[in-house]
This record gives sequence, structure tokens and C-alpha cells, in this order.
Amino acid sequence: MEEITSRSNGRVKAVAELLSSASARRREGLFVLEGARLCADAGETGVPIRQLFLTQQAIGRYPKETAFLQEKAASVFLITEEISRRLGDTQSPQGIFCVCGVLDKRPDDDTIEKNGSYIALENIQDPSNLGAIARTAEALGITGLIVSGGCDIYSPKAQRAAMGSLLRLPVLRTGAMEDALHICRAQGMQAFASTPCADAVPVSKAGLGARTVCVVGNEGAGVTRGTMALCDALVTIPMLGRAESLNASAAAAILMWEMMCGR
Amino acid sequence: MEEITSRSNGRVKAVAELLSSASARRREGLFVLEGARLCADAGETGVPIRQLFLTQQAIGRYPKETAFLQEKAASVFLITEEISRRLGDTQSPQGIFCVCGVLDKRPDDDTIEKNGSYIALENIQDPSNLGAIARTAEALGITGLIVSGGCDIYSPKAQRAAMGSLLRLPVLRTGAMEDALHICRAQGMQAFASTPCADAVPVSKAGLGARTVCVVGNEGAGVTRGTMALCDALVTIPMLGRAESLNASAAAAILMWEMMCGR
Repeated sequence: MEEITSRSNGRVKAVAELLSSASARRREGLFVLEGARLCADAGETGVPIRQLFLTQQAIGRYPKETAFLQEKAASVFLITEEISRRLGDTQSPQGIFCVCGVLDKRPDDDTIEKNGSYIALENIQDPSNLGAIARTAEALGITGLIVSGGCDIYSPKAQRAAMGSLLRLPVLRTGAMEDALHICRAQGMQAFASTPCADAVPVSKAGLGARTVCVVGNEGAGVTRGTMALCDALVTIPMLGRAESLNASAAAAILMWEMMCGR
Repeated sequence: MEEITSRSNGRVKAVAELLSSASARRREGLFVLEGARLCADAGETGVPIRQLFLTQQAIGRYPKETAFLQEKAASVFLITEEISRRLGDTQSPQGIFCVCGVLDKRPDDDTIEKNGSYIALENIQDPSNLGAIARTAEALGITGLIVSGGCDIYSPKAQRAAMGSLLRLPVLRTGAMEDALHICRAQGMQAFASTPCADAVPVSKAGLGARTVCVVGNEGAGVTRGTMALCDALVTIPMLGRAESLNASAAAAILMWEMMCGR
């Protein structure tokens, strides 16, 4: 196990960049997970662990997880507490960091299960929303996520909020949501887009269920026109109150619940 | 308008303490809102604004909101950009802070609408969850929130996530959830507690609707035994996936949606 003691070490700088920069993650095809639980989730679900960074304290405190991770990782580095605090996103980091290879596939005839129920996320900005939606999707038994370009599922915040769901759920990434919808519809699935507009079909009457993909749009702008045009119907969650609209993750929870009830 | 230029001014220190300390908020019966929109929401909903702190820039940038707030506030102070940055929770604060009086009432025969649908929150820890639940509750037309001791609805994070819903919705606060449930049941309402236990009644078959109160418990520990014992039934959101449980705000969204559908 190689030891790193300098905060300006090149590998440490590279990890810091992957943690802070979405474009670095895209460029390298890598992302970073932090903490015993999330890193172990990656190891268990077959996410390729390229590099593992551990503090001596972490090895003492999490013997089982760190031994398992050392088996899984291509290379392992011992870091100081100071480096761990520099990299850590939390106030008291656990001293365990994994650099992982991006796993997502493209949506195509092989990756889309035609009897499945998919939630599709178009340009969701807030990583906490992305993570929360993935966690709810896994809990409710959604088949997989389809995400379009703007959704940064590899941000540390998204991964933390997902509590491992983004590693376990199939995630299909597409540059343009339209491409994914063409494939889903060619497979015989019904496509829905959610909107706050009151004249759309109420979600409980839309027939959501299996063989369905439901698109949730950007927090501000909603689902794009091009995507809406490819959907069989626009669905809405009828609102009685004064709040302008539901938060994206609350709306997605209700949509996925209806998809689950309709199966 | 009195001018404050020193960061160590007593009033500034008091605001900083109210922002950072839940016990200071409880002791003083005061809380702080930040930003043009949220402060204006307070003014519109009749929340008593004891003190208003403004920067010169804020007066220029938000003339309508700051004029309205100056009418509503008992006293107004001009602060520097530096003080605004010290107090602000965001990277570029808008320079508008209100010190408001706590408004919540106790649940009793007068404050509980017996035909209402209430969501009751017992010791929810995460202020973002509290705020998100309030926002969803208002959107779905829930009558009001009942919160027990451990729910810090006046934390700046909760107020920001709620986007004004915690100011507009009736919030009834009780030291012990049991007391509130006794009152609800005496009014002829049905009480439910949500649980991840698979042997509870599935939420879609529980008959949630009007004349209902539904308790959501702490993120880790769930609803307390004493509260469960006072409920007519335990309800659960059936889960198919591997996630240990739904996030409290996703679970609450699905419960409130079922309450709304059942009316």
C-alpha cells in the first residue's frame, strides 16, 4: 500500500477535482464515493473501483469494509487525516474514498426492458433531488432510471442522497431524451410526461403501470417541448394548495407510487 | 432607519444566534427569515416582523419587497454588505433579514378542524425534510401540520426548503404527540401511524382521507411506541426494492397523496 502524505500529491489533486467538477467526471469517466457504506455498496454491486484511499484510522474503525474494499480495488493508497479532511465533504470524514469507473449504459433495445417501469429525468439540476428520486425508485421497485445530459448523477451530493440506489439501479444515460423515448415507444411502452398544468390528465386516471416510462423535467423549466411531443399523454398531480408546484422529488415519488399501484 | 456598521453590534449578534441556535429560537420565541421572497411571504401571511435588516443594495434591487417590509416591520435597520455576508446562509445573500415572532398554536378543540386532514411529524430531525414535507402538504391541500417537540420548523434550512409553506400552513405544536392524538380522536378523527413494517396495512387500503391524522416518525427510530398505541391502524408503503426505507419526505408525499385521493 503506497503512502501519500502531501496534500499537493497529484493523485490527491485528481480526486479533489473529480469531487468538485462535473466536467472532470465526464472527461475522465470516473467519479468518487466517500464513506464506508457507500464504497462497500460500490464493491458489492460490481462498480469498478480503480483507486481506494484510506486513513489508518479508517482501517481500525471499519476493518470489515476496508478489507473488502482492498480486495476489490485496483490500487490502494494510505492517506493522512489531513488529506482526508481536505477531500471530505462532511465535517468528520470517515477516511475512505473510492475512485470508480462510470457504469451507465445507453438506452437501446437490449438495455430497456419492455415490460419495465422507468422514471426518466430530464435536466434535473439539484443533485439532492436526483439522489432522493433514485432512492425512492429503488424502494418502490422501479425497473430503472433514464437520465438525460443535464442530470449529474455522479455528483457526491447525488450519490450520498441516493444511499447506494444509484449504484444498484440500472441507469441509462442519453444525450437527448427524445432518443430514449423513440426506443421505449418502439418497444411498445407508453410514454408520459409530468407537468404542473392543471389541464393534463390526473395521474391517478392516466393508467400508469408496467410498460411505462414517465418523464420528470427540470425544476424550473419542466419537461421540454420536444420530449412532450413524443409522449402519449401529459399527466399532472392535481394540487389544491397555494404552493407553486411540488418539489421534483416529491412529484416523482407520487408518480412512481402510481406506477407501482398500476402494475 | 438606524444604521449598523459593526459586525459585533449586539443586534447583529442576536440575529446570528437565532440563525444558528435552536435553543435560542425556543428561548426567545423568535426566528429569522432570509431573502426577499421568504420575508415578503411572512409579511403577507401576518407573521409578526419584529425587526427588519436591509442593505442599501437590497433596497435598490428589491424596491417593492423592501418597501412593503418596511411598512410591516416594527423596527428597521440598515446593515452593511459585510454584515449581510456574515449573517447570510447562502454564498450571495440578498441582504434582507427579518426577525419574526413564532406563531404556532397548540393543538386543541379550537385549532383542530375535525373534518381536516393532518400530517403529524414526530421528531423529524432533518430540517430539509421538514421543509419539503410542508411544501408538499400545502401543494396537496393538507389542512395543517402537527409537530412534536423534536421538529425544528424554525431552522433557516427548514424555512428555505418550505418556500413559505411553513408560514402559510397552520402549524400546531405539541410537547408530546400523544396529547394531540387524544384531541384528534376525541373530535372523531381517525389516527394512523406510518411504519416500514411490511405487516402493517398497505396505505392504499387503509382508508386515509378526510377526518384523518397520519403520523410520520423520526428518520431513524420511526414513530414512538406511545404514539403508535394511540393510533387506529399502522399503515405502510409496500416496498419492492432493496432500499432500507423511503426517505421521510418521500414517504410523507405518498401518504399525503393517498389522504388527498381518499377525500
